[in-house]
Amino acid sequence: MDLAALSAEKQAEIAASFGRQALMDTLGARLVSVAAGEVVIEAPVLDAAKQQHGVAHAGLTFAIGDSAAGYSAMTLLPEGQDVMTAEIKINLLAPAKGPLLRATGAVIKPGRRLIIVTGRVQSIDGDTVRDVALLQGTMVPA
Amino acid sequence: MDLAALSAEKQAEIAASFGRQALMDTLGARLVSVAAGEVVIEAPVLDAAKQQHGVAHAGLTFAIGDSAAGYSAMTLLPEGQDVMTAEIKINLLAPAKGPLLRATGAVIKPGRRLIIVTGRVQSIDGDTVRDVALLQGTMVPA
Amino acid sequence: MDLAALSAEKQAEIAASFGRQALMDTLGARLVSVAAGEVVIEAPVLDAAKQQHGVAHAGLTFAIGDSAAGYSAMTLLPEGQDVMTAEIKINLLAPAKGPLLRATGAVIKPGRRLIIVTGRVQSIDGDTVRDVALLQGTMVPA
Amino acid sequence: MDLAALSAEKQAEIAASFGRQALMDTLGARLVSVAAGEVVIEAPVLDAAKQQHGVAHAGLTFAIGDSAAGYSAMTLLPEGQDVMTAEIKINLLAPAKGPLLRATGAVIKPGRRLIIVTGRVQSIDGDTVRDVALLQGTMVPA
Repeated sequence: MDLAALSAEKQAEIAASFGRQALMDTLGARLVSVAAGEVVIEAPVLDAAKQQHGVAHAGLTFAIGDSAAGYSAMTLLPEGQDVMTAEIKINLLAPAKGPLLRATGAVIKPGRRLIIVTGRVQSIDGDTVRDVALLQGTMVPA
Repeated sequence: MDLAALSAEKQAEIAASFGRQALMDTLGARLVSVAAGEVVIEAPVLDAAKQQHGVAHAGLTFAIGDSAAGYSAMTLLPEGQDVMTAEIKINLLAPAKGPLLRATGAVIKPGRRLIIVTGRVQSIDGDTVRDVALLQGTMVPA
Repeated sequence: MDLAALSAEKQAEIAASFGRQALMDTLGARLVSVAAGEVVIEAPVLDAAKQQHGVAHAGLTFAIGDSAAGYSAMTLLPEGQDVMTAEIKINLLAPAKGPLLRATGAVIKPGRRLIIVTGRVQSIDGDTVRDVALLQGTMVPA
Repeated sequence: MDLAALSAEKQAEIAASFGRQALMDTLGARLVSVAAGEVVIEAPVLDAAKQQHGVAHAGLTFAIGDSAAGYSAMTLLPEGQDVMTAEIKINLLAPAKGPLLRATGAVIKPGRRLIIVTGRVQSIDGDTVRDVALLQGTMVPA
């Protein structure tokens, strides 16, 4: 996948779409990088997004993993073409303590009707980076 | 599954755990019913939880589906025993317009080490009820 | 789902397609019933399909669950329209001892582009019926 | 993961276990390599394992992907400790034409109770290698 070959228009389109995802704003998530077939989103583990033991709720981990995977698919679609999640599976590997989570979405196989994606979510505490979740799913043009 | 046989202690334990899930509060979710092997959570589709097209972000749908499924597993565990999601898969069936979402989690197979669960999320608009997501996953005692 | 409304042509088409699935023949599987949105396949646990502990290999359980789910989707498609598995997830609930396995595939949500299906595989020993696997997946017109 | 550090005993144990998986023999599969955390299995696309269009049935692709993933988990367990599949998800990426399929199973996260694994299945035709399936699942000590 040529990670450099993403048009400025597509980058702007994805940034604008991300800006309209209110849940991302609620969770404090931001779009960190957008390349052809790969998108990175980061979010702090806000108190507002925790579960009963004080680490990130799986809903946060899933939300940023899913969004990163979805936008990675969108980078490969024609301009103006949106994408939606058909299905996605998440394996939780370790408690998502944070204070920062980083989700990397990547296209495994592009397609006209189905785009197969993966997502990897890491918990970042200074220099310590730990995998906390792995996702595998299917995006479809919307 | 005997849906009536849940102790008051277990009900209180689950209500207290749910109360500590800050993300549920952020999303406006509430615990609607708790029975042995089946738990219902409802959440409005708040503006704060929408995606770019104005319907619920998959992160909301997942979060309440996952929590309902997890608590359905917890109803079958000994008192004081918590649960966590090992993995879960979600198929999105239709846009989650709301204004209300209802997630029903149910235990398919209890176990000492692994509890297999399903979740069903419906979008409710007055008398109109529509399935929007189906989940299948594995919970483990924590 | 109207389980009675399946044309004789569609039934014949599915029986013919099943007849061409050589793996089903290798595994001794047979098509037991075909109704609109629901298909049942049974297979003995042949010695040739066992794993190292003498019960059915997950590959057998998956194969009949996947085929039953796929054909349940095909019952809802126009005549002459084939189907293929985009993705499917299986949770194994108990050892598949047999001597007979029964897989029931059902459509959860039909669609023009994606058909969401479930599968349930049971192990049958005389009057004893036990769930051994649960599947959830996506079929696409081929 | 130190791919070299696998004891001769563990290698022999896995080879013996694979030898008892009758389905692998039925499908013509063979164990190609066993290293700590990574196992490779290959199988020809026998006529006996085809689906209605003459390519490998998803049951074959799944069976070798699942076995490779399971044995990759077993490489990391104490001697004498077996493993079984709790759940696994497969995304089918392209028709598995063969004539040879190669499944590579790898451990993503080892654990005492749960071992998270992936599997990748490729179709090989001379020098042409094509990804045909991606698996993600959970193995448990048996």
